[in-house]
Amino acid sequence: MIQGRVIGEVWATKKLAHLKNQKLVLVAQRGENGFSGRVIVAMDRLDAKNGDEVVVSFGSGARNVFVPGSRTILVDAAISQIIDRRPVI
Amino acid sequence: MIQGRVIGEVWATKKLAHLKNQKLVLVAQRGENGFSGRVIVAMDRLDAKNGDEVVVSFGSGARNVFVPGSRTILVDAAISQIIDRRPVI
Amino acid sequence: MIQGRVIGEVWATKKLAHLKNQKLVLVAQRGENGFSGRVIVAMDRLDAKNGDEVVVSFGSGARNVFVPGSRTILVDAAISQIIDRRPVI
Amino acid sequence: MIQGRVIGEVWATKKLAHLKNQKLVLVAQRGENGFSGRVIVAMDRLDAKNGDEVVVSFGSGARNVFVPGSRTILVDAAISQIIDRRPVI
Amino acid sequence: MIQGRVIGEVWATKKLAHLKNQKLVLVAQRGENGFSGRVIVAMDRLDAKNGDEVVVSFGSGARNVFVPGSRTILVDAAISQIIDRRPVI
Repeated sequence: MIQGRVIGEVWATKKLAHLKNQKLVLVAQRGENGFSGRVIVAMDRLDAKNGDEVVVSFGSGARNVFVPGSRTILVDAAISQIIDRRPVI
Repeated sequence: MIQGRVIGEVWATKKLAHLKNQKLVLVAQRGENGFSGRVIVAMDRLDAKNGDEVVVSFGSGARNVFVPGSRTILVDAAISQIIDRRPVI
Repeated sequence: MIQGRVIGEVWATKKLAHLKNQKLVLVAQRGENGFSGRVIVAMDRLDAKNGDEVVVSFGSGARNVFVPGSRTILVDAAISQIIDRRPVI
Repeated sequence: MIQGRVIGEVWATKKLAHLKNQKLVLVAQRGENGFSGRVIVAMDRLDAKNGDEVVVSFGSGARNVFVPGSRTILVDAAISQIIDRRPVI
Repeated sequence: MIQGRVIGEVWATKKLAHLKNQKLVLVAQRGENGFSGRVIVAMDRLDAKNGDEVVVSFGSGARNVFVPGSRTILVDAAISQIIDRRPVI
């Protein structure tokens, strides 16, 4: 998992059918010395706002959370936590 | 998932049999400060054009979308959305 | 797997339900020339302390350790060892 | 998947038993501005030659292509296509 | 898979139970221009020595080699070959 900040939302009308009505956000990844420059597109079910610090989880778990048992969902990242306070980085 | 721009198509006649008739495109990955330099080869079923901004999804979900239930397809990335407008990066 | 140092803990009240009561820590990844700048969020069941040198394991194994058989846990990294002494890096 | 150039072959006599008689090649990964510096070791069943431009696919699909149904093959990358012409990068 | 050099061993007494009696080594990853700076922790069943050039394989295959059928082993990387001679990088 990584820590980062929500910096925007992704808008698309042309998408694979199973991704309709799914909210995707852009997350700027944090490193030891501020933002790393890397940006991740993650699915959001926690209603994260712009500027929120979040934890992003990767892998097949992400698609199962959204459609349990599915193996055909093209989702590989999701926001799993919104952070209260940022202790170190 | 990552966001990027379609910058070309991959042409190959010599390929593993199950990849015949599959369209592969090159996607330049975006970071917080423009393009990251990284280029991804992704399968395309959304008819993306050169210059389109897209979301690329990774992992075993990609192969299942194209051949449901298959475990032998050598595809690890696919375009899942074509972006309408680019809000942040 | 990677080696790194525990540099903090993640505090969050808003999280996916299955992550309640799970301790997440921040780990600064080590490279050949000191810290690489990359920071990983990992689940901790070994009671790691700030400053501990640890091994972080990735992948679906991480979620199974915590909830055996589960495919819906959004955990992709966990501390698997706390290192006694650091021989090379 | 990534695009790259075959730059050599890996020679080893001491290997896990199931990797006997498997050809492994070194592939220099391409980025937007030439080679990225990263080198991947990939299994080759397409008889790629030094200097060939190829697509490398990652993940569990790679091991299934070589030994269908196997979950114990330590292969995570394979050449899936040899490219005819290089349109962009 | 990647190519690299064994640069040390990991010593730990506090570890998840299933990792007892497993030898972990540190591998400095090679790139096109020497070592990349990245260091990987990999399980070793080939009795690799310090200074050996090796191939490291990633993914769920790694844990199955060591405990067939297991889904709870926190191992994501293993040495799959010890290289005889280094042809290119």
